[in-house]
Amino acid sequence: MTSCLLHQNTFKRNEANLQSVADGRVDFHLLQDDGAVVHAETGDVIDAPDPNIVFGNADVWFGPQARLFFKFVLEASDLKWFQSAAAGVDLPALQAVAEKAQYYTTNHTQSEAMAEWAIWQALDWMKRGPDHRENERSGIWERLDQREIMGSTWLIVGYGAIGQAVARRARALGAYTVGVRRRGGEDEHADEMITPDELLPALGRADVVLLSLPLTEATENMANADFFAAMKSNALFMNLGRGKLVDEAALIAELDTGKPAHAALDVTATEPLPDASPLWHHPKITITPHDSSMTWGTVLRADETFLRNLGRYLDGKPLLHVLK
Amino acid sequence: MTSCLLHQNTFKRNEANLQSVADGRVDFHLLQDDGAVVHAETGDVIDAPDPNIVFGNADVWFGPQARLFFKFVLEASDLKWFQSAAAGVDLPALQAVAEKAQYYTTNHTQSEAMAEWAIWQALDWMKRGPDHRENERSGIWERLDQREIMGSTWLIVGYGAIGQAVARRARALGAYTVGVRRRGGEDEHADEMITPDELLPALGRADVVLLSLPLTEATENMANADFFAAMKSNALFMNLGRGKLVDEAALIAELDTGKPAHAALDVTATEPLPDASPLWHHPKITITPHDSSMTWGTVLRADETFLRNLGRYLDGKPLLHVLK
Repeated sequence: MTSCLLHQNTFKRNEANLQSVADGRVDFHLLQDDGAVVHAETGDVIDAPDPNIVFGNADVWFGPQARLFFKFVLEASDLKWFQSAAAGVDLPALQAVAEKAQYYTTNHTQSEAMAEWAIWQALDWMKRGPDHRENERSGIWERLDQREIMGSTWLIVGYGAIGQAVARRARALGAYTVGVRRRGGEDEHADEMITPDELLPALGRADVVLLSLPLTEATENMANADFFAAMKSNALFMNLGRGKLVDEAALIAELDTGKPAHAALDVTATEPLPDASPLWHHPKITITPHDSSMTWGTVLRADETFLRNLGRYLDGKPLLHVLK
Repeated sequence: MTSCLLHQNTFKRNEANLQSVADGRVDFHLLQDDGAVVHAETGDVIDAPDPNIVFGNADVWFGPQARLFFKFVLEASDLKWFQSAAAGVDLPALQAVAEKAQYYTTNHTQSEAMAEWAIWQALDWMKRGPDHRENERSGIWERLDQREIMGSTWLIVGYGAIGQAVARRARALGAYTVGVRRRGGEDEHADEMITPDELLPALGRADVVLLSLPLTEATENMANADFFAAMKSNALFMNLGRGKLVDEAALIAELDTGKPAHAALDVTATEPLPDASPLWHHPKITITPHDSSMTWGTVLRADETFLRNLGRYLDGKPLLHVLK
């Protein structure tokens, strides 16, 4: 019988659907937060879990047994398929799993929550959140001139699932959207699609510039002094990709000259951000702790991806979102 | 010749379009911030302005000569038409103008900026803005569980131009939208339309409840203890209408019991909000100073409305957005 390792909470949340899809063809082995793995049907403790299928998601990664979980996965004798709840594979543990598993599938269900982060940060800047809150703290009733997403121009650098999810929302709110990706082309949520060689001149048109692309040798430090100097002085810079896309020293230097006007960063070159980092308390920088995707919706959508792929796997159909 | 009174800045911003539409049929009299009124063509000071047409907008209302402006309007000997940049006429000065003018036209161009306020406030609550900022101030890198607009249910009480602008955006972001208006019916941006008698039971379904309706005898204090008690405990309450729609003492009492979870108010019963008001520093209340519409976009859209109506007026066509 095919054995499947997943977190106990994931199983409980999806028990009826999992049993229906598995239809008796899978033994579910449940990782508990006390470190024990139990058989879903019998409740027996399994001393040496040896899974064929694994679902790695937030219940595991942000739970107390993440290390043990990866040990079971990396020591498995016949790992057929690993379903990840994440889009990226640049964490060393996931890279090792991807090398070991026969099939490795990813997930783009974080994009929706991440796109809401981008809209949130853009509105908080355009509606002058910091000034409003400062006045509120001081009990000052002062009407402030604000900007609008409607009519603003967004440059979305890296136009995968996240970039597209942002473009869809920004455009629905009345923005003009420009997507940047290597193959250019067209997309229903972008008013324009351009290629990376067209990026630098396009920066000067944008009110909002968002990085939503993976970290590679080619993209490391791509947001450097030249990049920021090409932006408008009253523009917002955001990073939803990886911290090392940004030359952080250059960002601080350029913010201090007024280009861009503000930066919102969900990712930083070193995470957690060190206490001594000047990013923490810079008045023109908003930091969130790489948690833009941390929503219940992200968890539930990843469950749906796993359920759909489990059915396909058991029926011998091609998996969705296959990395290898 | 028909004379038209408007602010100098408004004229300068739209000079080419105004001259083109007027086509020599209008004398433009420009109110300056020093209190003088000058003839647009000649620059001569006009000692006793007596306008037939008036455009009242933010340049005037938030400028230093608002009082003088209303004096000219209310003393005019033959006031044909007053174009307001606002939707409401519940300010005493505008009520007096509306009684005096032969035609009075309003404007719904504030709705877009106000709808962005609603999305901003909802995201700031769902993405846990206050907790994120508290952690950022303390240099704490802690991932926080957040909610999403996607999949949330919005109850939009008062479904005029503002309510519809909010519904359009919330729905584009994946929310389920329920509009409340007297005539019920259907609307393209609402998943459901209900009537006011169906409001109380619907409150328990909503993650976000927004007031966007005018103040009348029937709506005063409509958001009272019963209203809040019917909401979900983890819901957001927002008011974009008028402060007196809300029983503020009841709101505070119910927030303290946990229903709703948070309130975002752009309007309060007394404005400016008095220093002693408990609304100012309540941890579950966000206050903005009735400035949700204060954007450049709102100003420009109102200009467009005036230009369009000026052409219609001069050509003898029916005006748009006629109150009387």
